[in-house]
Amino acid sequence: MDKSLLARRIAVAAKREPADVVIKNGKIVDVMNGEILEADIAIVDGYIAGIGHYEGLEYVDAKGQYISPSFTDGHVHIESSMVTPAEFAKVLLSRGVTTAIADPHEIANVLGSEGIQYMLDSSENLPFDFYFMLPSSVPATEFEHSGARLCASDLQPFYRQPRVLGLAEVMNSHAVYTAEQDMLEKIIDATVNGKKIDGHAAGLSPDYLNVYMSAGIRTDHECISAEEAKERLRRGMYLMIREGTVAKDLHQLISVVNDRNARRCLFVTDDKHLDDILLEGSIDHNVRLAVAAGVSPITAIQMATLNAAECFGLHHKGAIAPGYQADLIFLENLTDLKVTKVFKSGQLMVDNGVLIHPVDQPFVNESKRILHSVHFTDLKTTDLHLKLNRNKANIIGIIPNNLVTKHLVEEVELMETGLFSTSIAKDQLKLAVIERHNQGKHIGLGIVKGLGLKSGAIATTIAHDSHNLIIAGTNDQDMIVAANAIKELQGGLVVVKEGKVLASLQLSIAGLISTKTYKEVQLELEEIHLALKELGANQHFNPFLTLSFLALPVIPELKLTDMGLFSSSKFTHIGIDEIED
Amino acid sequence: MDKSLLARRIAVAAKREPADVVIKNGKIVDVMNGEILEADIAIVDGYIAGIGHYEGLEYVDAKGQYISPSFTDGHVHIESSMVTPAEFAKVLLSRGVTTAIADPHEIANVLGSEGIQYMLDSSENLPFDFYFMLPSSVPATEFEHSGARLCASDLQPFYRQPRVLGLAEVMNSHAVYTAEQDMLEKIIDATVNGKKIDGHAAGLSPDYLNVYMSAGIRTDHECISAEEAKERLRRGMYLMIREGTVAKDLHQLISVVNDRNARRCLFVTDDKHLDDILLEGSIDHNVRLAVAAGVSPITAIQMATLNAAECFGLHHKGAIAPGYQADLIFLENLTDLKVTKVFKSGQLMVDNGVLIHPVDQPFVNESKRILHSVHFTDLKTTDLHLKLNRNKANIIGIIPNNLVTKHLVEEVELMETGLFSTSIAKDQLKLAVIERHNQGKHIGLGIVKGLGLKSGAIATTIAHDSHNLIIAGTNDQDMIVAANAIKELQGGLVVVKEGKVLASLQLSIAGLISTKTYKEVQLELEEIHLALKELGANQHFNPFLTLSFLALPVIPELKLTDMGLFSSSKFTHIGIDEIED
Repeated sequence: MDKSLLARRIAVAAKREPADVVIKNGKIVDVMNGEILEADIAIVDGYIAGIGHYEGLEYVDAKGQYISPSFTDGHVHIESSMVTPAEFAKVLLSRGVTTAIADPHEIANVLGSEGIQYMLDSSENLPFDFYFMLPSSVPATEFEHSGARLCASDLQPFYRQPRVLGLAEVMNSHAVYTAEQDMLEKIIDATVNGKKIDGHAAGLSPDYLNVYMSAGIRTDHECISAEEAKERLRRGMYLMIREGTVAKDLHQLISVVNDRNARRCLFVTDDKHLDDILLEGSIDHNVRLAVAAGVSPITAIQMATLNAAECFGLHHKGAIAPGYQADLIFLENLTDLKVTKVFKSGQLMVDNGVLIHPVDQPFVNESKRILHSVHFTDLKTTDLHLKLNRNKANIIGIIPNNLVTKHLVEEVELMETGLFSTSIAKDQLKLAVIERHNQGKHIGLGIVKGLGLKSGAIATTIAHDSHNLIIAGTNDQDMIVAANAIKELQGGLVVVKEGKVLASLQLSIAGLISTKTYKEVQLELEEIHLALKELGANQHFNPFLTLSFLALPVIPELKLTDMGLFSSSKFTHIGIDEIED
Repeated sequence: MDKSLLARRIAVAAKREPADVVIKNGKIVDVMNGEILEADIAIVDGYIAGIGHYEGLEYVDAKGQYISPSFTDGHVHIESSMVTPAEFAKVLLSRGVTTAIADPHEIANVLGSEGIQYMLDSSENLPFDFYFMLPSSVPATEFEHSGARLCASDLQPFYRQPRVLGLAEVMNSHAVYTAEQDMLEKIIDATVNGKKIDGHAAGLSPDYLNVYMSAGIRTDHECISAEEAKERLRRGMYLMIREGTVAKDLHQLISVVNDRNARRCLFVTDDKHLDDILLEGSIDHNVRLAVAAGVSPITAIQMATLNAAECFGLHHKGAIAPGYQADLIFLENLTDLKVTKVFKSGQLMVDNGVLIHPVDQPFVNESKRILHSVHFTDLKTTDLHLKLNRNKANIIGIIPNNLVTKHLVEEVELMETGLFSTSIAKDQLKLAVIERHNQGKHIGLGIVKGLGLKSGAIATTIAHDSHNLIIAGTNDQDMIVAANAIKELQGGLVVVKEGKVLASLQLSIAGLISTKTYKEVQLELEEIHLALKELGANQHFNPFLTLSFLALPVIPELKLTDMGLFSSSKFTHIGIDEIED
């Protein structure tokens, strides 16, 4: 804190000097006292200096609109948007979100510490506040090969960064439960540095919550029922109410919010894709849904502002009060909460819902590793040969718009050689997961049902959590073309038909993020959508989104990693033709 | 944080090991979710490890009583109790208070940094958590001589102490308003160290609150009306609702507390004397009054627990939740909130309302200066000669039980020499304030009306804020005897009649605090009370308490410091016979 800035802020508060900007005629959403207040807001050097009657060098007429603190996303993986932090900021700014607590879990699974550092560097000095939690679970499991392994000692140096607020979603509940040494060290490092620890308590029982809370893990964004939400509040956890692209929990959870516990509740998106944010919004969408569900607008706004700030110890954020950052939004009303203007640190960024101020990509010294993260030996046809000892197989059954799959057992067609033959009629396609980090030549093969492709193949390097290359295809030749195309792009999404790439999206940053603008990415995504139609893909869900979760072993029932087929119920790898009759 | 302790806490939470203690059959006041919960509480190593069903090495049967987190006093001057932190802790423990945010403002005005260090040392390793805010205003004003002057650079080293949470009540509003350099430095030092800043916004207007908040001053405990309270909440200040010995604000302020803003409200005592705490309680009294005034018991308890913890960033306190300190109280019911049992860090300290566990005075290397702080040249009769040029004088008029005095102008009796002569008939007594820190020979003389002494003299070294020696008497001889007695005691309270000390209380620690137990102090206070009766003192208020505020120049209307009579309306010293006709 600079002494002359403090003196100037005081001089403006004391009315000895005019403010930079004074906002007049607004109805302030006072999240502290829980009411609407009519007064001027005086802003200097990006901070609020006074509420009352003020004079300024410039004036903004709010014309009777509501003025709220801007919103905070309490937990988000920026990588899920497939754009850089600067592009992500552009999209969120226009939605009234100016702060995000990001977990660089995806890029860290590819690039380790270098990935975390890239996210810090590429999010610096933006007119948007990115804070970071350090990925606690790299690799996510021992059932796949990731690009990195982060121990406590790897994370520890990052706590010196002021924008690092703590340890991200602790998902290895077994390691916490059994008090594994490295997990304890990660927890202690966060604690002694005065940082926070986020939980990831998917399906955990109240007893398990005791273990988490005892360890100092104080939030959860994974509960999916009101009962689970209540259990978390009762144990003292902050309840993060999630509404993302896949997980849409708000409707289930919002009924537990009341006047007494609302302070312990906040909003998150977790994973939300670019097109969905552009379509329906970010945290503004959560607020709107909450209000529509009957939560009072001031309470819903408190959840999106002050509560998130308190949860993460951001004492200069989340309220319209002197000494707080001038991060403000104008709302036409408190029912549909349409954001018209957005101020970040006193700067008008968005007007009439449109970004009017440049958001410059920070200069980042991108190492070769960041832009060249896809390493695997060229596939030979034999690499995709799937030999079965019988004509019955374990098959991954897709449930549309669900992370969970069904473990199917079906008859399959075999060639004379005993090799599996895809069947378009039965919708039995080949699935391959190829380790792409260290040229480890690990290839897992399987059979998937439900994608509905009638021809060609699709491939992507977004495959939670290790982000290996995953390919689904109707024939081996197109699968190999897809793999080659991905390698050429150094990561991304491709759609291949009859040996030709119909459409692609290059994600050359770690194979997860595009170097292009969000508008360019949006256009390329539309082309991919058209190409998928050409392959006859099921139109009721997003095949790439579905694909990106087929390699996530910890979620039921049957998944495929680069180490082979994985049964979550048996919690081990199984053979494709290893069937209990 | 110790790894093996964390592992053990997890092991207990996970039910692999038994808890140290399990509390059964209690109704838990769940301040997080705002409801009553029936479950076991498992405690290990002083922390809560689980809520649910647990087994332990020992069991406590709550027999259906309510179990609440124990209470926190958000702002208190321990010195006002006249006992050491250890003795203070004993008294508060039995009232269910286990944490206090103390401001060593009084002792710092006598001994400077050494006083602060003494309070830190003498409050260490107690079964009670003392945290400290660093006195921001030493000396409190320029209109008196204090024992020390603390600049920003004197305070700065204390921020390394983990029990130092910030900068205490900033009362020099003028220095903030005008952005004085040393004040800015104090504020910046607190801020860059991640610490809090308490306000002291007595009578400040909303515009002035903008100045305070802009400077990062985030609390106020000085508001005395609902309107002031609302203004503070609206500007984003934490509202500290005070109920002490002199200032009793709860009744006025409690009406502003509602479900939406209660999270921003907490309780303090500020200054509460030993006898009052013993009689009616500490923060438990605030909670009771709030409930009696219609606040729901859970909300009132949240204010006394979670809210105070959040205000000061104490993330392991103020709730019954795993990972939180096992600081708990049993309450018979939620109406009169009688505290029956008190656990501090899992240790049963109080049973049936009686302290059952030793509270050992920490060993403190008391320097000679701490125990020898009363330094003034022996008074000669002429030192008390008050010569007037006319028989009309400015007189300090006492308003019973009020810090404010009346500025009276009355005819007085003069001797032939022109010296003022006390008049018992007119209740015009002589008042003397003698600089007692540095043998500076500063003596202020004045006339006081309203004490009602019929004979003798009383003297004390407790005189806010500089704590010089203040003596009121019916005759000079007894005033000199009182001064000598005080010097002999090295501080305290004395009652003198006809040349003899009738009763005294020795306060040899800085002239403010006794080295004795609270029970001994209580007995000596009773003797003083009897002696005061013998002097015929007004029985409707405490003469020593009144005396202790007669030297506080910033409070209206007329006061006396060692530099002479002070008019708060003129904001300067005035002559006793300097009367505008």
